[in-house]
Amino acid sequence: MKLYTYYRSSAAYRVRIALNLKGVDYQSEHINLLKGGHLAAKYTLINSQGLVPTLEIDTGVNLTQSSAIIQWLEEVYPDPPLLPGGSLENARIRSFCSAIACDIHPICNLRVIKYVESELGAGKNGKLRWIQHWISKGFSALESEVSGNQFCFGSSPTLSEIYLIPQVYNAIRFQIDMNIYPKLYSIYRNCNELPEFINASPENQIDALG
Amino acid sequence: MKLYTYYRSSAAYRVRIALNLKGVDYQSEHINLLKGGHLAAKYTLINSQGLVPTLEIDTGVNLTQSSAIIQWLEEVYPDPPLLPGGSLENARIRSFCSAIACDIHPICNLRVIKYVESELGAGKNGKLRWIQHWISKGFSALESEVSGNQFCFGSSPTLSEIYLIPQVYNAIRFQIDMNIYPKLYSIYRNCNELPEFINASPENQIDALG
Repeated sequence: MKLYTYYRSSAAYRVRIALNLKGVDYQSEHINLLKGGHLAAKYTLINSQGLVPTLEIDTGVNLTQSSAIIQWLEEVYPDPPLLPGGSLENARIRSFCSAIACDIHPICNLRVIKYVESELGAGKNGKLRWIQHWISKGFSALESEVSGNQFCFGSSPTLSEIYLIPQVYNAIRFQIDMNIYPKLYSIYRNCNELPEFINASPENQIDALG
Repeated sequence: MKLYTYYRSSAAYRVRIALNLKGVDYQSEHINLLKGGHLAAKYTLINSQGLVPTLEIDTGVNLTQSSAIIQWLEEVYPDPPLLPGGSLENARIRSFCSAIACDIHPICNLRVIKYVESELGAGKNGKLRWIQHWISKGFSALESEVSGNQFCFGSSPTLSEIYLIPQVYNAIRFQIDMNIYPKLYSIYRNCNELPEFINASPENQIDALG
């Protein structure tokens, strides 16, 4: 299996965690978003949306969009389950994930913040305020949704941590004080003691070295 | 079952279509986003994210986030299936949906475009260009992903049309020429001949009358 990835991409980071939690081996192919690697014809042939990640599961068979990839992994590699509950509990976990995947992350994605900074002339400060605004708004709600401070829902990571940890990583990168969200911050620190999360982290990717 | 909805909300529109395709009866409770109904304490008690839709499935049991709600409906009301394929085919459908749910819709959501228009001072024209930019970028990729022009994948609507039709509705509202995307436009027109889609459309909601 081959993952087209970029170390700082939240969506790729999610898939790296999921692959590690499932114990699935994979090779990495690094796509440099800052150098426009995602827009090269060679890449858009396999990912028409020009986004990372893409998971090549067999020669010429490519899965795109992190949520779809992770759901596929959950179906094909059911153990350990990322959605361990019944339909109702899983809906709660999925809602938590969607709040990050839809209502925080894409609004602060590289291509969007570039547009805010340059096309809209917000500059570096305006860009930082934009990012902080949407992350803070989202985290305020999510802090009230988790059921504990060890993991989001229950006593081991589920799909929710796969979405939360990369988003907290981003929040810290953009100078958000995570002490305002003590439960989310505690969950972040707990996950970052587990090898599946450590090995997936941006710092531990080869392309982080530049 | 009670759906907290707003006629022009894409996310609520998706859930209305899904409920209709599943043949599930529901009552509507209208939340006026323009008048801040989603931010009222009464509403944020049941939806901490302050977003529509919310589906009350039993007294005090509320599901949030359209993707989580629709997945719950798929599990509890499996017929007709919204994801009729195997894992691989379904991953393709889910990727199509995510491209809309993550990479088009939330960037053009009411609260985001308000920020673009006012906080960032882009004005009405800048706001319109913003919306057109992200929808066009997304639709260019999606036009190449659908397998036909009757429906997106196969001979009947799947999860993909639940996401596509509200997004095309929005595109037309914001003056995008859908003739540039002939397959997506054809699928839109085909769906809008089906009662499940007609009854879910913004024009046919009571709160559209103001």
